[in-house]
Amino acid sequence: MDDFNPRTYIAALLDSRRPGYALPSAFFRDERVYAADLEHIFARHWLFVASEAEIPEAGDYKAYQIGPYPIFILRQDDGSVAAFHNTCRHRGSRILQQESGVVGSKIVCPYHRWGYDQSGNVVDCGPGNDVELARGLRLKPVHLRNLSGLLFVCVAENPPADFEDLSARVTPYLAGHAVARTKVAKQVDLIERGNWKLTMENNRECFHCGGHPELLNSLFHFLGDIDPATLSEEERRVYLRYEESRRLAMESWNRAGVPWQRIEALHGRPTGFRTERLVLEGAGESMTVDTKVACTKLLGSLTERRLGSLHLHTQPNAWFHFLSDHILTFAVFPIDSSHTLVRTTWLVNADAEEGKDYDLEKLTQVWNATNHQDAQFVAETQLGTASPEYVPGPLSSTEFLVDMFHRWYDERMRAGLKI
Amino acid sequence: MDDFNPRTYIAALLDSRRPGYALPSAFFRDERVYAADLEHIFARHWLFVASEAEIPEAGDYKAYQIGPYPIFILRQDDGSVAAFHNTCRHRGSRILQQESGVVGSKIVCPYHRWGYDQSGNVVDCGPGNDVELARGLRLKPVHLRNLSGLLFVCVAENPPADFEDLSARVTPYLAGHAVARTKVAKQVDLIERGNWKLTMENNRECFHCGGHPELLNSLFHFLGDIDPATLSEEERRVYLRYEESRRLAMESWNRAGVPWQRIEALHGRPTGFRTERLVLEGAGESMTVDTKVACTKLLGSLTERRLGSLHLHTQPNAWFHFLSDHILTFAVFPIDSSHTLVRTTWLVNADAEEGKDYDLEKLTQVWNATNHQDAQFVAETQLGTASPEYVPGPLSSTEFLVDMFHRWYDERMRAGLKI
Amino acid sequence: MDDFNPRTYIAALLDSRRPGYALPSAFFRDERVYAADLEHIFARHWLFVASEAEIPEAGDYKAYQIGPYPIFILRQDDGSVAAFHNTCRHRGSRILQQESGVVGSKIVCPYHRWGYDQSGNVVDCGPGNDVELARGLRLKPVHLRNLSGLLFVCVAENPPADFEDLSARVTPYLAGHAVARTKVAKQVDLIERGNWKLTMENNRECFHCGGHPELLNSLFHFLGDIDPATLSEEERRVYLRYEESRRLAMESWNRAGVPWQRIEALHGRPTGFRTERLVLEGAGESMTVDTKVACTKLLGSLTERRLGSLHLHTQPNAWFHFLSDHILTFAVFPIDSSHTLVRTTWLVNADAEEGKDYDLEKLTQVWNATNHQDAQFVAETQLGTASPEYVPGPLSSTEFLVDMFHRWYDERMRAGLKI
Repeated sequence: MDDFNPRTYIAALLDSRRPGYALPSAFFRDERVYAADLEHIFARHWLFVASEAEIPEAGDYKAYQIGPYPIFILRQDDGSVAAFHNTCRHRGSRILQQESGVVGSKIVCPYHRWGYDQSGNVVDCGPGNDVELARGLRLKPVHLRNLSGLLFVCVAENPPADFEDLSARVTPYLAGHAVARTKVAKQVDLIERGNWKLTMENNRECFHCGGHPELLNSLFHFLGDIDPATLSEEERRVYLRYEESRRLAMESWNRAGVPWQRIEALHGRPTGFRTERLVLEGAGESMTVDTKVACTKLLGSLTERRLGSLHLHTQPNAWFHFLSDHILTFAVFPIDSSHTLVRTTWLVNADAEEGKDYDLEKLTQVWNATNHQDAQFVAETQLGTASPEYVPGPLSSTEFLVDMFHRWYDERMRAGLKI
Repeated sequence: MDDFNPRTYIAALLDSRRPGYALPSAFFRDERVYAADLEHIFARHWLFVASEAEIPEAGDYKAYQIGPYPIFILRQDDGSVAAFHNTCRHRGSRILQQESGVVGSKIVCPYHRWGYDQSGNVVDCGPGNDVELARGLRLKPVHLRNLSGLLFVCVAENPPADFEDLSARVTPYLAGHAVARTKVAKQVDLIERGNWKLTMENNRECFHCGGHPELLNSLFHFLGDIDPATLSEEERRVYLRYEESRRLAMESWNRAGVPWQRIEALHGRPTGFRTERLVLEGAGESMTVDTKVACTKLLGSLTERRLGSLHLHTQPNAWFHFLSDHILTFAVFPIDSSHTLVRTTWLVNADAEEGKDYDLEKLTQVWNATNHQDAQFVAETQLGTASPEYVPGPLSSTEFLVDMFHRWYDERMRAGLKI
Repeated sequence: MDDFNPRTYIAALLDSRRPGYALPSAFFRDERVYAADLEHIFARHWLFVASEAEIPEAGDYKAYQIGPYPIFILRQDDGSVAAFHNTCRHRGSRILQQESGVVGSKIVCPYHRWGYDQSGNVVDCGPGNDVELARGLRLKPVHLRNLSGLLFVCVAENPPADFEDLSARVTPYLAGHAVARTKVAKQVDLIERGNWKLTMENNRECFHCGGHPELLNSLFHFLGDIDPATLSEEERRVYLRYEESRRLAMESWNRAGVPWQRIEALHGRPTGFRTERLVLEGAGESMTVDTKVACTKLLGSLTERRLGSLHLHTQPNAWFHFLSDHILTFAVFPIDSSHTLVRTTWLVNADAEEGKDYDLEKLTQVWNATNHQDAQFVAETQLGTASPEYVPGPLSSTEFLVDMFHRWYDERMRAGLKI
C-alpha cells in the first residue's frame, strides 16, 4: 500500500462514521486503516505495558512488540526503570530475545557481541570495528512514565504532555491499593481473533455481560446512570439491591478514606482516561465467584474489604480493576488487523503467600472465564462485520463508553493525519 | 487493491484467453480476479448450498460463508425454508455461530441478546436501547429457491430470473429420485489447495479419470460423442461393451419412465446447467466398486436398479449424481484465491437403515477416494500454472465441458463488469 | 503490486544504501523488492541446486521451486544431466510431484497422462486430443552447468556467460576433492525465518562466530587480513597459533599439490564467486569437534588429511566447504520475503561405509549446531530491522565479504532494472 496515500480514504471513512452507532466495517479490517492505527494511535500515545511488579529485581527486563517496534523495559541497577528500542545499532538484530529475562550491567547483543551499558551507550563493538564510530551510538530510548507502579511507554519523539494531568488526578485513587508493593500472582496471554478496536469496544460496555455468568456474581449488570422508570420488575429488584449495596459500600469507602468519585476524561484529549469506584454485588469485596476476597492479606495497609472495584480505563490499550485484595491489569497489543493480544495480570500483596493467603484458582477463575467469553464475542463480531451487508447498528444508552472510545479514536486519527 | 480499478485489467485478461485452451495463470491467483469472482460470480448467481435433508426439523439451521457474506438457511416452524444474512443488526456479530444447529421461535444473538423472530424481525433489543429504532430493523433476507429438495441461494438484490427455466426443465428428471424424501447418510468437507476454477474444471472432464481407479469400475471412461473411427483396439472393446450396456439401460429407463435426454445449457445464460443420464459399467446400478446398489432400499418409489447415473451440473458451484439407490451432491465454496472447500453429501432413502439397508463404507468408498485424487490434481495444477513459463495448452475434445465452463465464466464476468 | 512500477522505488532505495553499512530495512521485507529479487537475481543468475551425487542413477530426478518456477533436474538414461520446467504443456500441472524420485524413459504427467521423452518432447497426449498440435510441444528446458559435479541452473533465456570463466578458474581447486565420486551421507533442510539476504550476509562474515562454539573448535575466529598491531593479548596468542598451523598446512598443501591461493571475484560480474583454502585449528583436518577427519576414507585419491577447508562462495545462493574427508554444500532458496530454505548436504567418498569409515553423528554435529545458531541470528535480525527506529550500522573490517555481497546485489539489481 506504500504507493497509495491512505489519508483521503481514511478521512472519508471517518466522515462516514455515524455517532451513536457501531463503526463501519473497514475500521476492523482495511489494511490502510490498520497501518494508520499503528502509526497514529499506537506509535503516538501512552501505552500501558506492565506493572513494576513484573520487573522487581535489578537487571529484570520485559520485551514487547508495539506494532513494528520491538522495545524492552529494564529495571536498572539503581532501581529505576528505563525503556529502549530493542534493535542493535550494528546490524539491527533484536538484542533481548526472550519475552522476559535478566541482564547484567552490560547488555550484550547475541549476534556480534556489541555491548551496551544500562543507559544504552555502546561500550563494546568487537575487534576490527571502528570503535570511535560505534562508540558514538547508543540504544534509542523510549519514553516511560511510572503511574504509582503502572508503567506506560510512548515510542513517539514527543509524547502527549497530558499524561502528567492523568497522573495528578489518578494517583490519589491508586494510593490505597499500593500497586508498587504487589507481586504477580498470575499472567495470562490470550490472542483474540479480531481487530483491536473490537477488543476495546467489548471492554467498554457491559451490555453483553449477560454472557459472563461468572462475572455477574460480583458485577451489577448496568453501567452509568439508570432511570428507574425504564426498569422491568426484575431489574427494579436488582436496582434496589444495588442501592443497599451502595449505601454499605459508601460507609466502607469513607472509613477507608478512598476516593470514589467518577472522573470522565475519555476523549477531548490525547491521553484519554476514566476512573470510577464501582459497587459490587453480594459481599461486595472482590471480583470472585462468591464476591468475597480471594486474598486474605489485603493490598498495602488496607483493612476494609468492601472497597468494591476501582475501574480505570486508559486510551488506547488498557483497563484495570483495583480491589481490596488484588489488582487486575489488562494490556492490549495489536498483532495484525484481525488478531489482538490481551495480557491479563493478577497482582496481590507482595507479602501474600499462595496456598496460605490466597488460592490461585479462586483468584483467577472469574476473569479467565470472562476473557475466553470476550474472545468469542470479538471473533464473531470480526466475522459478522466482514459482510458487505453489515450496516452499523444503534448503540444503546448502556454503550455510552463505546461511543466515547469512538469519539477519542476519531479525534486522534484526525489529529494524526492532520485532517 | 481498493486503489486500483481491476476492470481494465480483467477485460484485457479475458481478451487474452484463447478459446479451446486452458486459462491463463492469473485466473487462478491474481487477487483482483479473485475479488471479481466473489463479486460478479458468487455474489450474483444461484449457488447450491444444501439439500432439504440437511435441515429436516423445525428450527434446524446451517450456516455458510459465501465469500465475505456469512449467511444461514433455516427450517421455519411452518416447515418452509428461509435464508438470511448471519450478521446482527446491532453491532454486527455473527448470530448463528455453529456450522449447523437448532434455534427456537426466537433467534437470539449471543453478544447482546438481540432477538429476532423466524422472519428476521427484531423482537428484543435489551434494556436501555432505542426500541423504536431497533424494532425498525430486521435480518436481511437472502433469496432462496427449492429445486425438488435442492436448496439454492443468491445474495444478489436481483437474482437471475432464469432459475425458473432450469427448474421447469430439470424437475421432471429429479422426480423419480425423490430428493425431498432422503436423509443424509454422510457429509464430508475437503479443502482443496487450489483456485475454485481448477476445482470446477477438474469436475467438468473425465480425461483425467485414469487417475480414478475406484470410479472407473462404474464409469465409462469417455464423455460426449465418440467417433468409433478414432478409437484404439482396447478403446473399441470398451465402446462395444458401452453400446450393450446402453441398450440394457434404455430398457430399464423406459420401464421406470425416467427421462434421460441430455439438456445442454451450460452457457449463454446466467444460470448455466447441464443434465444427462449416463450409462454405467458392469451391473450398471450405482457408483460403487462392484457397480451394484449400495442401498437396497431404493429412492422414492423406484423399483428399477439399473438407472445409471443422472448427472446434473449447475454453474458456478455444484454437480450432482442421482442413482437408483443414493444421491451425491457436491457444493463448492471458495475460501481464498488458492483454497476451495468441496462439500460432498451422500443421500439415501429417508427410511433406509444403516447396517440393514446400506453399508456406509461401501456407499462412500468410491467418492471419498475420488475426491482425494481430485484434490491432488487441483493442488498440482495450482502449483504448475504459477510458473511464468506456463503456457495454456490445448483442450482435448473430451474436455468440451471445460471449454463450456470457460465460456460461461467469460460471459458472466463481462456481464458483471459491463465490459 | 502489478499496478505499480517498482523501478523508481527500488532505484531510490539503492541510492539510499550507505556503502560499508548494513542494508536499509526495506531490502529485507518490502514486497516490491522481494518481487524484484526473484525476477532480477534468482531468475537471471546461476543458482547452485545439487551435486551429481544427489541423482546418481538413470531416471533419478530432484524437483525445485525457484521463486515462482517449478523445475526439475534429471539424470538421463545416457548418464548426462538435464533440467526442465516442471509444468505440463497441457493444463499446467506439475509433472514430477515429489522432491525427488525416479522416472522411466517416458515422463508421464499424472493428471491427463501426457507423456514426454527424456528430452522433453511430447510423445503421448491421450485419446481425442489434437495430436499434431500437442506433438509440436515440448517441456521447456532450463539451462544447466556442471562444475566438477556441482550442478547450477539458470531459468533465464540468456544466462550469464561468465560462468565459463568461474568454471575454468575453480575447476583446478575442486579437482583433488573429486566431487563427482562422492555420495550423500546426509541432507538437512532448514527454514530460516528471515529474508534470503540476511541468510547470505550471515554466511559472509565470521564476526558472529563467537556464537558458534562447535564451529570454533576448527575455525580460526577471523577472516581476511589481520593487522597484528590491533590484536589483544588473547587474540595475539590465537594469531601465533594460527601462524604455526598455517606453516604446517602449507607443507601438506604442497605435498598434496592442491591450490590454495585466494580468488576474489565476488562482485563486478554477474556470476560472482570467491574461493580460498583456510587453515583449520588443532589437527587442522576437518570441521569436526576434534578437528580430525570424520571419514577415514578420504575423498578421491587424497592421502593428506591436513588440507584445511577450501571455501567456495557463489552469488547469489551458495557456499561450500571442501575438506580432505568430506564436502559440505549449502543451497539457499527464498520461500517468501521473510522465509528462506537452507539446504545442507554432507558428501563423502562414494566408497565410504557408514559405521565403518565414518560416524554420521560426528560428521554432521558441527554444522547441524551451526545452522540452528545461524537460523536464530537471521530470525532476530529480521525482527529487529523491522523497527522504524532501525538505522543501518557500520560494518566492521571483518565483515568485508558482507560489503562485497551488497556491492554485487546493488550492481545486479541496477543491471536488471536498467537503472
